This record gives sequence, C-alpha cells and structure tokens, in this order.
Amino acid sequence: MAKAPVLTPRADDFPRWYQDLIAKAELADNGPVRGSMVIRPYGYGLWERMQAEMDARIKETGTQNAYFPLLIPQSYLTREADHVEGFAPELAVVTHGGGKELEEPAVVRPTSEMIVNDYFSKWVQSYRDLPLLINQWANVVRWELRPRLFLRTSEFLWQEGHTAHATYEDARDFAARIHREVYEDFMVNVLAMDVVPGRKTAKERFAGAVNTLTLEGMMGDGKALQMATSHELGQNFAKAFNTTYLSRDGRQELVWQTSWGSTTRMIGALVMMHGDDSGLRVPPRLAQIQAVVLAVKDDETVLAKVRELGDRLRAAGIRVRVDDRTDVPFGRRAVDWELKGVPVRIEIGPRDLANGTATLVRRIPGGKQPMAIDALAAALPGILDEDQALLLRQSRERRESRTSEVSTFTEAVEVAVGGGWARIPWAALGEAGETALAEHGVTVRCLVAEDGSVPDDGDAPGNVAIVARAY
Amino acid sequence: MAKAPVLTPRADDFPRWYQDLIAKAELADNGPVRGSMVIRPYGYGLWERMQAEMDARIKETGTQNAYFPLLIPQSYLTREADHVEGFAPELAVVTHGGGKELEEPAVVRPTSEMIVNDYFSKWVQSYRDLPLLINQWANVVRWELRPRLFLRTSEFLWQEGHTAHATYEDARDFAARIHREVYEDFMVNVLAMDVVPGRKTAKERFAGAVNTLTLEGMMGDGKALQMATSHELGQNFAKAFNTTYLSRDGRQELVWQTSWGSTTRMIGALVMMHGDDSGLRVPPRLAQIQAVVLAVKDDETVLAKVRELGDRLRAAGIRVRVDDRTDVPFGRRAVDWELKGVPVRIEIGPRDLANGTATLVRRIPGGKQPMAIDALAAALPGILDEDQALLLRQSRERRESRTSEVSTFTEAVEVAVGGGWARIPWAALGEAGETALAEHGVTVRCLVAEDGSVPDDGDAPGNVAIVARAY
Repeated sequence: MAKAPVLTPRADDFPRWYQDLIAKAELADNGPVRGSMVIRPYGYGLWERMQAEMDARIKETGTQNAYFPLLIPQSYLTREADHVEGFAPELAVVTHGGGKELEEPAVVRPTSEMIVNDYFSKWVQSYRDLPLLINQWANVVRWELRPRLFLRTSEFLWQEGHTAHATYEDARDFAARIHREVYEDFMVNVLAMDVVPGRKTAKERFAGAVNTLTLEGMMGDGKALQMATSHELGQNFAKAFNTTYLSRDGRQELVWQTSWGSTTRMIGALVMMHGDDSGLRVPPRLAQIQAVVLAVKDDETVLAKVRELGDRLRAAGIRVRVDDRTDVPFGRRAVDWELKGVPVRIEIGPRDLANGTATLVRRIPGGKQPMAIDALAAALPGILDEDQALLLRQSRERRESRTSEVSTFTEAVEVAVGGGWARIPWAALGEAGETALAEHGVTVRCLVAEDGSVPDDGDAPGNVAIVARAY
Repeated sequence: MAKAPVLTPRADDFPRWYQDLIAKAELADNGPVRGSMVIRPYGYGLWERMQAEMDARIKETGTQNAYFPLLIPQSYLTREADHVEGFAPELAVVTHGGGKELEEPAVVRPTSEMIVNDYFSKWVQSYRDLPLLINQWANVVRWELRPRLFLRTSEFLWQEGHTAHATYEDARDFAARIHREVYEDFMVNVLAMDVVPGRKTAKERFAGAVNTLTLEGMMGDGKALQMATSHELGQNFAKAFNTTYLSRDGRQELVWQTSWGSTTRMIGALVMMHGDDSGLRVPPRLAQIQAVVLAVKDDETVLAKVRELGDRLRAAGIRVRVDDRTDVPFGRRAVDWELKGVPVRIEIGPRDLANGTATLVRRIPGGKQPMAIDALAAALPGILDEDQALLLRQSRERRESRTSEVSTFTEAVEVAVGGGWARIPWAALGEAGETALAEHGVTVRCLVAEDGSVPDDGDAPGNVAIVARAY
C-alpha cells in the first residue's frame, strides 16, 4: 500500500500544494485580520537571510538605512495624481487615536514616496547633498481582497529605497544599478533563481513612475511572478513636494528620483520556484540551516557523535543544526527537514557509527549515500556549491522549455493560458493588444531587447514582449 | 569674543539641549502625524548596531525571531482585563480598509501579547513544544499626548520577546535571564551605561504582568529613564487565550509566560547619558563609525594618505569613515563629527604629513595630541577600550554622587525633586507613600535588595525603593 503523500502533488493542484507546503514546513499562518500573515520562525529565518544578503548589496551602493513613520496624513496621498489613483483602493485608514477622532485621518503607509519626499525637500539644499540615497526595512499595508500567503497579503515586509539625484542620467543609472547589482545579483547568485530582467510597459508601471524595471521569474506551474522592481520617478514627486536643490551654477533645480522595492513575496517565489512534491528546497547560499545532523536513535555514543560532528562542520564554516530530539520519532523528523528543504541531511545511527560512516541525504538532487564521517567537513562545501548550481540550472531549463517564440496575439494567449511564456514582438502586440490580453487573464510581464538586455526605450524596434499569466 | 555655542548648554536648559543635539547631530526629525518620528541615517545607524548586538544575545538564549501582524482585531484587546485597561487610552484604530468600513475595527499593535497568544494556543500542543521562545523586531503605536523624540513617540521601533514555559520556575528564570544576560549585559558592556537592575512595584508593573523587572539609568540631569523591562506574565494571558499543553503525565495544563522589550528609546538614553555640551559621545563598542579620518585640505598627497590610512585602520578591525569632502570647510566637518560623537577623529593636513604625524582628537575624554601616522593602527584599539571604560565610569560616578540614602518620605521627595535619586527603605515608604509621591511628580523606579540584587519578593524585609523623577 502506497503511503499518502505529505503534500497534495503539484500536478494535482498547484495552489493547494503551495498552501500545504507553507503550513507543513511551518513558514506562515493566516492572521486574524483578513489578508494578514504570521511569519513563523522558519519562514522568518529565510527572510533574515534575505535581508542580510540584500542589505549588504544595498549598502555597497552607498545607500544608508533610515526609518520613516508608518502613519501618513491622508492629504499627502493626493499630491501626486497617478500615485493616489494607484493606491487609494488599497488603503487602511486610521480615524481614531488616543481615544479621540483625529482631525485628519492618517493612512497606514502603502509605500513611502510621499512622506520621504516631505523630508527630502527639507534635507536637500545644494548639489553637495546629492545624490541622497536612502533605504528602509519596514512593513506596509495594502488591503487585499484575494490574499494568499507571502504572495498577496494585506501587510507585508519589504525594503524600499528612495533616492534623489541632480540629473536625469544619474537617477536612471542608479535605478538600473539597483536592478542589476542588488536585485538580479541576489536572485541569481543567492536564491539560485533564473529571472528575466526587463522593462514594464506604460500600463504596468508603478503609480507615479516614468519607468519601471522588473525581474520576472517563472514559477513551477509556468506562471510569472514579479520579483522586485526599480523605478525612475522622473521629477513627478519632486514637483509635488517642491524638492529642489541649488545647482553649482546657483540655480534652483528639481531633483530626479528613483524608488525600488523587494518584499516577503520572495519567500513565496522561493517555494514556487524550487519546491517539489516533498517540500521546499532551499538554495544552500540562502539556507539558515545548510546541513542538519540527525541522531537516528537515543544512544549515548550516537548523541556524542552528532554533537561533535556538528561542531566540526560549524568550524568548517557550514551553517549546521544538530537534531538530537530523540523523543520525536526519527521518520517524522526526517520528513520535517525534507519539508523544510534543508539542503543536506546527515543521519547517524549505531550501525553507521560502527562503520565510521553516516548517511548523507541530498535534498536538491535527491538520493542517499553512505559517507565516511571524517570526510564530511571537507566534502560538504563542494556538495553545497554543486546543489546551488543545480537549482539555478533547473529553473533556467524550466523557463527555456516552457517559453515559445510567437508572432500573433492568438498564439501568445494560447501559450500563456497553457501555462507557458510567449515571446512576441512588441510591434506585433502593441498597446491595443496588451489591453486585449486582460480578457484572457494574461499580461505583458516585461519588454526585453532582442539580445535579452533591458531596452532603454519601451518602443524601440526589436523589443520583445513576454506574455504570461502572473501571480 | 566667545563663539556662540553649537548647542544650548545643558546647564541652561536640558530639554532644549536634548532637542538641539538630536536635530544638529541629524539623529531624527519630528514626523507629520503628531508624535511620530523620522529616524535619520545617523540615528538609524545607532539602532542597527543596537539591533545587531541585542539580536546576537537574544539568539544565544535559544530564542528565534518571527513576525506577527501589525493589525489586531479590536475584540482581542478586551480578553485580558488589566491589559486592555492599560492600553485602551493609547490605541490607534483602523476603521476603514480597501475603501470600505471594516466590520470589526482593528487596532495598530501597541504590543503583541494578545495576537501572540492567539498563535501560541495553536502551536503549543505538548510539553515537547516548550519552552517556546519567540522574539520580533517591529514597530508599535501608542498615542502620545506629550511626545518627545526617541523618549515618547506615537510610533517606536522595538524588539518584543514572548515565551511560554511548562512551569512557573522556568518562566521566572527565563525572564530573569533576559533581564541579566541580554539587557544588562548589552547596556553595561556595549552602551557603557551604568544601570540599576530592579523590580517594579505592583503599581508600576506592565499591564497584565505579575512581575516586571527593569533597568533604570540616570540621565545627565539626574532623572531616571526605564531602559528595558522583562515581565513574568504568570498564566494571565494563557487563561485568556486558553494556551494549554499536554504534560508528561497526560494532563492539560496552562502555560506560564514571559514578555520583554527594549526600544528606540535607548537612543534617547544614549544622548542623555553620554552627551555633553559639544554633542553626542558614542561608546566605541556601539559606534558604527569608531574613527573618522579627515583630510584637512584639498591636497592630492593628503587625500591619498587619508584613504590609505582608512584602509589600514579598516584592516586592523576598526570601523572607519574617511572624510574627504574638502568642498565643505574643515571646521564645519570637525564640529559635525563632534556633534555626532564619533569616538576618535584623525586629522591630516599638509603640515602633519611633512612630519609623518596626524592630529588625534579623542571625543570622550576630550583633547588633541599629535601621533605618528604609522603608530595609529596599533594604538587605536587600546584607546577605544580606554574610552569605552571611561564612559561607563563617568555614568557610574554620576549616579553615585547624585544618589542619597534617606529614611523619610519628605527627604525622598526633596532629593528626587532636586534632581537626584533617593534610596529609601520600602518599609518606610509603602504603597501609600508611593501613591503620595505622584503629587510631587516623582515615582518609585524600582525595588532592590539591600545588597543591590533584584528581590524575589517585592515586600521582602530590607528592600530599598529608588525614588526619582523619570522620563
């Protein structure tokens, strides 16, 4: 008799598989207020590692962290017309504070362009103050009617960067630098995710931006997920808040701005990009636990050995957890670490010990093998690197195998609805075609140049639109 | 003619000095919604260092980070009677979300005991799940009528720990461990702050707690500031949320709980504890910039030297900033680093360079001295350690010199109103005396045992009450 699967198989019901995995791997729970989320310790550990890797890259660009208030006077929202139109339907509004009705209601920040500009306009005086490069790690609230853990939640955690520059070129280059050196580098080299860097169409731009750069990833079901975005804001917010500087030649000039964000949604992407029917598979470079050493049985010698091995692996620079909870059945613990996607499991029982070996279980390629205990510390770094590379290769192969070159609207819709990505010349689709895609639940994820680079101009000849269903 | 002081002198107007310092050292600005605050990059850098040091200590206790929602259904608040009474007057209430009035309003978390317990009651099944040790780094909102930057703001950042234990003793010991190994250790050894560990009186306890442990620090004006608290919650929240576990012998038992928090208020304490009339003085172990190397003049050789020295000091493990902004007058930069309290300034001009020396300016003891450039990397670690120790000694000496042993209510009030701390036998003051202190704007900050330890019992004979004015 076959054992019941731990998770609903992906092929049967992908959304259900996703929900099951998040619950059983103890990543998150639904919160009591509609659309809110509790991030459990194992899920939050993934976020902490993401924060550490991203924060180092952000600081490398010269950006400094700061913190702006959660509550924003409602009137601020109306200062930039496109911005308010984009966000008004999603706002949470505080009407009472300290037991009294507020004179002016405050909105819980859905993003911070408005309040940041209020201060940028005070802090920026002269060209010497530019560029001003600020980031914050914070929570934001955008009311969600159809919430889904990590992907669409009414509250989520993110980083939002906000910068002001003296010239258009400097702002444009900085938005591109973040897109490439922070987001793409992190996703490819840490998350082991194949992502497509591109440019959003005018229709899909951030509310208030003049250009939005995106990274799109293909999930396990062939749908696209927007992984992070970097915006050129032009002078839209500078005009709304009169953010000006005294130039070298003594004139008052409006600043040029960017903003850019990435969120806890990346955890959802991690699940849907790398997960399989047994659970999550965490890329070794991201993993807060790269290897878990399990005591198979409650045996003095075994327990001493797993602890000793834990110390040796730790000394070799590996992030290790020792699992000596022998009051929990071994099989249950093994399944649990599999669900949680820890890259390497090292199992030691009395029989192994007699041979000086352990059982090495690799979560990413799958498969078990015996290995001399004394060889593990030297072997693991290479194994982890191999498995990191394999995950990236698998995600690239999936995208390539499920992407089709098409030349007509009808073909593009057919590919996208069938669970793949269509590449169609933008000239063959156009804005009218883009609008018509909506009827089929399909969107233009981004525009790329013929050679795969990010186009400077959305309407440049040769631009290709990537069309897909999206989360 | 004497130069106008950069800050209002402390002796003239301490609160004004505090405000001036926060503005001129660019730590924070007032936010647009009453009582809110923008934490500027230099201020936030202090918080990041506090987070890193505290987070490592918190994890050392086996506690894991997680994240609970910002918005809490209003009805949750009412479940624990003391808790709701304590927090109701400070709540911010969201009544509208996504363009509609909510069926049930949500409060912005003032603290998370309620929502944490809602999940603890689901996650805790058996004694094997205990202790459950969770922390979160988050923002909270408590409406403030008399806000003051960092000290009392309607929104602040903090960490809040929440734990559940099988026994009363385990919970009690864990609250004490956090108090001592996380908070006191961090404050004494990183913040270089003399703090008094003690026990709150019943009147001053956290709303819903059965015991509150505190650390009280004496500020530059002799007032007390509560630096962090660790609470034994008993079974109050467990009862309200029915948080039970199956014990080893098969019975359903209520858990015993703790909660504990420390906030951005510590930045305010840092200012008021260590600041002087020239600005902040940051303890070297906390400082995100321990040494700044300044180019006095725009001179090729000087610029090359400051950059090279910066690299050498960095290689020696010192956190260094190179200040080569020679388009800003040297004097202005020197004053700015003094305001920001960077422990060591190294100034290099063309004349110094000819002698192979730099001018070393030590912010904490004060004073300048020439020093061979080649000797700096070896000398600085010792200098920074000395200055760290000096700050701690100064804060201890201040507290000792301004603390008086008294035996009557009248004397206690006199000492406290005069800007000092009074130590009075708790038996001589009592709850009636404590209540009467309020008329004089004075409170019992904490109870300590005769030998200075933290009493297990608030009413133990020999307990001493520390009476002071407080922030």
